Amino acid sequence: MTYSIIIIGDELLIGQVIDTNSGWIARHLAPLGWQARWVKVVADSAADIEQAITEGLAQTDVVLMTGGLGPTKDDITKATLCRYFGGELRHDEATARNVAAVVEARHLKLNDYTRTQAMVPTSCRVIQNQVGTAPIMWFERDGKVLVSMPGVPFETETMMQREVIPQLLERFHSDVHLAQRHLVVTGIIESLLAMKLDDFERSLPAWLHLAYLPQTGWIKLRLTGMHSDEQLLNGEMDAQVTRLHNALGDAIVADDDLPLAAIVGQRLRDRGLSIATAESCTGGNVAHAITQVAGSSDYFVGAVVSYATRVKVDQLGVSAADVERHSVVSQPVAEQMATGVSRLLNTDCAIATTGVAGPGGGTPDNPVGTVWMAVRVGERIVSQRKHYPGTRDRVITRATTDALLLLLAQLRG
Amino acid sequence: MTYSIIIIGDELLIGQVIDTNSGWIARHLAPLGWQARWVKVVADSAADIEQAITEGLAQTDVVLMTGGLGPTKDDITKATLCRYFGGELRHDEATARNVAAVVEARHLKLNDYTRTQAMVPTSCRVIQNQVGTAPIMWFERDGKVLVSMPGVPFETETMMQREVIPQLLERFHSDVHLAQRHLVVTGIIESLLAMKLDDFERSLPAWLHLAYLPQTGWIKLRLTGMHSDEQLLNGEMDAQVTRLHNALGDAIVADDDLPLAAIVGQRLRDRGLSIATAESCTGGNVAHAITQVAGSSDYFVGAVVSYATRVKVDQLGVSAADVERHSVVSQPVAEQMATGVSRLLNTDCAIATTGVAGPGGGTPDNPVGTVWMAVRVGERIVSQRKHYPGTRDRVITRATTDALLLLLAQLRG
Repeated sequence: MTYSIIIIGDELLIGQVIDTNSGWIARHLAPLGWQARWVKVVADSAADIEQAITEGLAQTDVVLMTGGLGPTKDDITKATLCRYFGGELRHDEATARNVAAVVEARHLKLNDYTRTQAMVPTSCRVIQNQVGTAPIMWFERDGKVLVSMPGVPFETETMMQREVIPQLLERFHSDVHLAQRHLVVTGIIESLLAMKLDDFERSLPAWLHLAYLPQTGWIKLRLTGMHSDEQLLNGEMDAQVTRLHNALGDAIVADDDLPLAAIVGQRLRDRGLSIATAESCTGGNVAHAITQVAGSSDYFVGAVVSYATRVKVDQLGVSAADVERHSVVSQPVAEQMATGVSRLLNTDCAIATTGVAGPGGGTPDNPVGTVWMAVRVGERIVSQRKHYPGTRDRVITRATTDALLLLLAQLRG
Repeated sequence: MTYSIIIIGDELLIGQVIDTNSGWIARHLAPLGWQARWVKVVADSAADIEQAITEGLAQTDVVLMTGGLGPTKDDITKATLCRYFGGELRHDEATARNVAAVVEARHLKLNDYTRTQAMVPTSCRVIQNQVGTAPIMWFERDGKVLVSMPGVPFETETMMQREVIPQLLERFHSDVHLAQRHLVVTGIIESLLAMKLDDFERSLPAWLHLAYLPQTGWIKLRLTGMHSDEQLLNGEMDAQVTRLHNALGDAIVADDDLPLAAIVGQRLRDRGLSIATAESCTGGNVAHAITQVAGSSDYFVGAVVSYATRVKVDQLGVSAADVERHSVVSQPVAEQMATGVSRLLNTDCAIATTGVAGPGGGTPDNPVGTVWMAVRVGERIVSQRKHYPGTRDRVITRATTDALLLLLAQLRG
């Protein structure tokens, strides 16, 4: 099946809000073999919404639309849908009851704005929104489907998962099996990787496709296959993944389609190891990445963010003399931070970072973007110096990723 | 001026990568009075790219395009541009030198793929990419402009700022002045706020516009005005902001267009206060938010992420008896964490969080989504209990925001 996504909202076109709905939808429909033809972000403008709908229904089987359903004035989506699919706006009693229930559950009161949310086009079937007040509207025309959903990511994600995806799959039943495998590749840039895999790609059967998905500091390889014979498909996928391992060796650090911190977490749990972090320039972001993973309390004990030098010395036991001699951004300080936090919090492993995230604070020896990081696993400690170009955000993000990759490499052996 | 944005890349349409380029571009052009008509994300497909270009040049003055210029095989943007604007691909010596310099600065070697990046359409003017290998290409036709830029956000952002925006402003000179004011509003939901401001909005002159920009847990109000008389414009903006303050009173907690953590940071710096955080369920995210702000080392001393209960007791001095009596997610524990970290790290202020981010770990008294947070300023301590619906990510994000808002409210008095 092919589909298009229309995202409605003035706030997106001035960059105040970043659209995450289209990414979420695509990420959840791709494994089902559904292909997004395009995503279009348009203003709260009847003409622009209408044009996008026309294009979507002409070029794809399904149009998924989010936004433009909030209570404030600039919302005209419903009137446009009503004009487009015919009929008129009517008061829907089931929707009114649902809105009242949602508003009550939030300990709020109905008002003129929430009341208008029960008005829906006669041409649609309503799917009640279980986690918000804006109703989900399902339209059909000439065998094609348009679903209008709220702009709030939490509401759209919840209702896509509970109702919209199951109903779409039922409506458009398909026989093709889809398989995907992901590999985490590090230590090689995209253009070199592409050269290395030139022969591999040439020899792939037409129904298999390799995609390069560059992340910050590493590359995700995704092998996708579609075939009506599921056994043949899975056998061929296994064989090709083995070929990739043969071609790339140690550059492949994981075979999972999980966030890096979740892969690291899995390894720690498998080996029964606990971990802590000691962070300076990353300011808690490594701990945040680790604890974004559900169940991370199984292995993550805690962290000390030692932003001020005195916290490094007083809490983590870093040698003040070494700070003086080597500066605070140095190998001995990073390693002593790792050792210090694993002793303080009594953990098997530790990650430590110390660097200059910028824009200020650079020195000739340690210009902005310099980061020392250390990883401790048991009594073994490794460390590395990195230099990142770019903004403060980028330095923090890349140092976080590289620190996790450094740990992952130690957990492989 | 109106413009459209085309984002190219298969990886975006499967949701593996989230487009941040369009948001960045819109955020930086909106204050200059440039209006984005739409954003379209398309695949690495000649037909789809061509259709989007046709539409963009027909409907807007300028088309800004990112992506589809990487070294791997699925990149066909250049050939499409060449076909569209006429001429052919030629080897450009200046671009070749630039690519070689960038590759050398990264301590890498030229290869077949990076070498092809010096091939550009004869119909374009090249703007050399100072931070990457893909050249920026500027096309003109019938008084309209199309600029093709790399997909890597860091490269596009840097080159937009250094070259593309200045060149666009020079090319399309405009006389209209633009003014914007932002207000941070908390403690009121969007629909109620809209009701409260109904009269205000009705009485605005036609050249002023109020927008609601709901954030996670708070609302940003943006007043935008455009007028050829700059003095009149600024006077009217000031008057309307005063009216908003009169209408909303304490619900307005800040007058800045900055991230919440930067507003908090400014207040701390102004009052000469230092801060630390003690985090359980937020796992370091509050510290991360604070340290994302450049210069935060002026007031941020450090953090203890006390994920395991023993870290709360051993490092922060939380009473084990209180943990036993009230559970770890409770007011006394949150307050003792705040007091404990400000004593341990010797700071004036502290933020503490303890909660159940989920999906596991809920109890009848403290279901998933329950968070206790405490804020200490000097000897004064305040705390609140919150309950958030939704995913782990959402609980962490909202608790982080609310903890910062709680501190902000204490710093206002």
